[in-house]
Amino acid sequence: MRMSVFFLPTLKETPAEAQIASHRLMLRAGMVRQTSAGIYAWLPLGHRVLRKIEQIVREEQDAAGAQELLMPTIQPAELWRESGRYDDYGKEMLRIKDRHERDMLFGPTNEEMITDIFRTAVKSYRNLPLNLYHIQWKFRDEIRPRFGVMRGREFLMKDAYSFDTDAAAARRSYQVMFLAYLRTFARLGLRAIPMRADTGPIGGDLSHEFIILAETGESGVYCDPDWLTLDVLTDAPGYQDDLNPFFERYTGIYAATDEKHDPTACPVPADQLVSARGIEVGHIFNFGTKYSEPMNARVALADGEQVAVHMGSYGIGVSRLVGGIIEASHDAAGIIWPAAVAPFKVGLINLKPDDDTCRSLCEDLEGTLAMGGDDQVLYDDRAERAGVKFADMDLIGLPWQIIVGPRGAKTGTVEVKNRATGERQEVETTRALDLVA
Amino acid sequence: MRMSVFFLPTLKETPAEAQIASHRLMLRAGMVRQTSAGIYAWLPLGHRVLRKIEQIVREEQDAAGAQELLMPTIQPAELWRESGRYDDYGKEMLRIKDRHERDMLFGPTNEEMITDIFRTAVKSYRNLPLNLYHIQWKFRDEIRPRFGVMRGREFLMKDAYSFDTDAAAARRSYQVMFLAYLRTFARLGLRAIPMRADTGPIGGDLSHEFIILAETGESGVYCDPDWLTLDVLTDAPGYQDDLNPFFERYTGIYAATDEKHDPTACPVPADQLVSARGIEVGHIFNFGTKYSEPMNARVALADGEQVAVHMGSYGIGVSRLVGGIIEASHDAAGIIWPAAVAPFKVGLINLKPDDDTCRSLCEDLEGTLAMGGDDQVLYDDRAERAGVKFADMDLIGLPWQIIVGPRGAKTGTVEVKNRATGERQEVETTRALDLVA
Repeated sequence: MRMSVFFLPTLKETPAEAQIASHRLMLRAGMVRQTSAGIYAWLPLGHRVLRKIEQIVREEQDAAGAQELLMPTIQPAELWRESGRYDDYGKEMLRIKDRHERDMLFGPTNEEMITDIFRTAVKSYRNLPLNLYHIQWKFRDEIRPRFGVMRGREFLMKDAYSFDTDAAAARRSYQVMFLAYLRTFARLGLRAIPMRADTGPIGGDLSHEFIILAETGESGVYCDPDWLTLDVLTDAPGYQDDLNPFFERYTGIYAATDEKHDPTACPVPADQLVSARGIEVGHIFNFGTKYSEPMNARVALADGEQVAVHMGSYGIGVSRLVGGIIEASHDAAGIIWPAAVAPFKVGLINLKPDDDTCRSLCEDLEGTLAMGGDDQVLYDDRAERAGVKFADMDLIGLPWQIIVGPRGAKTGTVEVKNRATGERQEVETTRALDLVA
Repeated sequence: MRMSVFFLPTLKETPAEAQIASHRLMLRAGMVRQTSAGIYAWLPLGHRVLRKIEQIVREEQDAAGAQELLMPTIQPAELWRESGRYDDYGKEMLRIKDRHERDMLFGPTNEEMITDIFRTAVKSYRNLPLNLYHIQWKFRDEIRPRFGVMRGREFLMKDAYSFDTDAAAARRSYQVMFLAYLRTFARLGLRAIPMRADTGPIGGDLSHEFIILAETGESGVYCDPDWLTLDVLTDAPGYQDDLNPFFERYTGIYAATDEKHDPTACPVPADQLVSARGIEVGHIFNFGTKYSEPMNARVALADGEQVAVHMGSYGIGVSRLVGGIIEASHDAAGIIWPAAVAPFKVGLINLKPDDDTCRSLCEDLEGTLAMGGDDQVLYDDRAERAGVKFADMDLIGLPWQIIVGPRGAKTGTVEVKNRATGERQEVETTRALDLVA
């Protein structure tokens, strides 16, 4: 992609309404644009990041045996009356009347609808366990939307729903998602810490929030310092293995939000306890038969007995993660994308686009890099001052920069900059390609 | 994927409400489930097809130079008041009040919103031409939703919007999309015919519908027999070429819906004229400054003059295409998927799952096929009668079937069936893999 044609409306000035870093940087980097309070259009740069996160989430759900489907955004009120939540849910639920005056709503979550789909399709224990997920836009009519995509009204969420014949099987399904979540966040370049949580309007008795640490986080958290060095991807068992030892170990290392933290009962000595701020990026629930009982979602066991299925639900805030990653990874100059979610891997800066040698060298590099895919290189071929180009490239935070100037170009030399460390090296072009590979 | 775990709730009986083949077959094949009138959940089999179509549409938009972004579903009413369409659009528009009593709506299309995004971001002719698209769920509150996903209320659409400095440049942008659409439908295995169309509520003076032929189509169409043999992918010029000759040729071959068809003026002799029924799967519009003038979307030309941009919009009904493809490609036994959009390439039927030789041979074949990706094989390992397995596999319409029975398995022989032709061959396993490759 070339910046001369790429729709990347960066802003020089910080919009006054943006109070936190991710909101500021997403607006300045031309990633999103607010279209109503708490509702955003995802411009091409932001959309690329969103889709990369979505794809990693999808791959890990698939690997864990969950099956993707897609439920609609507009739901009938009747389903929510069956579960009793139509009245319980307050004004956050966007209630709608269609042209025939039927009560509808823009789904804030999908427990009722998936239970309805399940109960008409599955009748036997032989079809369990089952885990169904989708990645879909949801709506919660926040009274005071703020912090950009971190607390917006329309947001992209992955939500999975598990179905089991009994509590023990449901616990295993919960462990599978617990592991899948740790793997997902690790792949996204994040250190996410599971913390025991209240279940709120979803219900149930077992629940964990996954929280990433960031100075600007919304809530205070306390944890064992072990959390800062654990390597989930190395520790993780396979999904076919007994997951109990892993689950016991990872739920046994102390971590608590300030609501749950009790200094007198905390097993970590005060001088070792990590006190930080965190952002919730996922939340999992085991709620037994809370929905299956009232909605009559039952299966026949081998002996013919009809039992209400035990369920869990598992959410990841996909659009929220874009903001969360930025909160955890930025500096004064802009965003610093982890490689796995970067909109492009390399920013190629041509300091003198009207110089034939520079242009020819850049086009060679662009061609070589682009062979790896359309997310490999963003080529700044604009007729702009060098200062503007450096500032824009730092702002949008691609992991690598390759800078081509007229002096170096004559001898086939370029500068390679690592955005995260700031390290710069003057190297030959082939070496530059090796460095960023 | 194994059918013993795959969430595939096929139906033996045809739901009474389904009047057309695609609706019947999508329900029977467990592809979708209606959740409210005209609103569907896409179950895993249907979702796979939907995503394959979406990806082909995306690739062709990208190849044509359009850039993907993502606008929200919920739009503010103010934008539609600016264009004047808030009052013009009738009850098909789902109007919503949020908790602060602000007028919102679930977008039926996005001309206003993209014009708003454009006008705040682009100020100069140097950033044109520009084409922005998204693939997003839309809502039109049909008074009487019917025909399944063919005329639903919540539907997935690709809509692109082009911006140019003048009418000539806008005409070229229109030609680029005209070509991209022909390429897209050809890749989907469809023969789509562009026909001059009225512009309706979108406005403008130049418009084509893309219509595929199907016996069950919603409208009558007439066309030159040449349309039945044209090979778009061979004829297509590159996007950098002069597109006028191609555009003139392809708009010069007669094709008209019955609304536009005039037998007295038709250049094709009556005895050669193809009379058929068709389904609209795409619609493109060039509408000049209809939105840019009232919404004040202007750019500066080289001489400083401010001009309203010339726009076009370009829609493909992605979810509707799933139904359209089935209408164009099915038989009495079920769906016949074109290879490019098939949810899986091969259905592997184990006639005797409790036989060690059968199971071992099937698992070898499954393993080899699955190396090509998770869309390569659906393995029917269920303990069901052969008749059920044959019927289900014909119903869901995968391009190839490999049938493994105990007699053949002993000598490494299987049966390969081509779903479209019905042709069956007894072959060795290595030959079977070659046939389906």
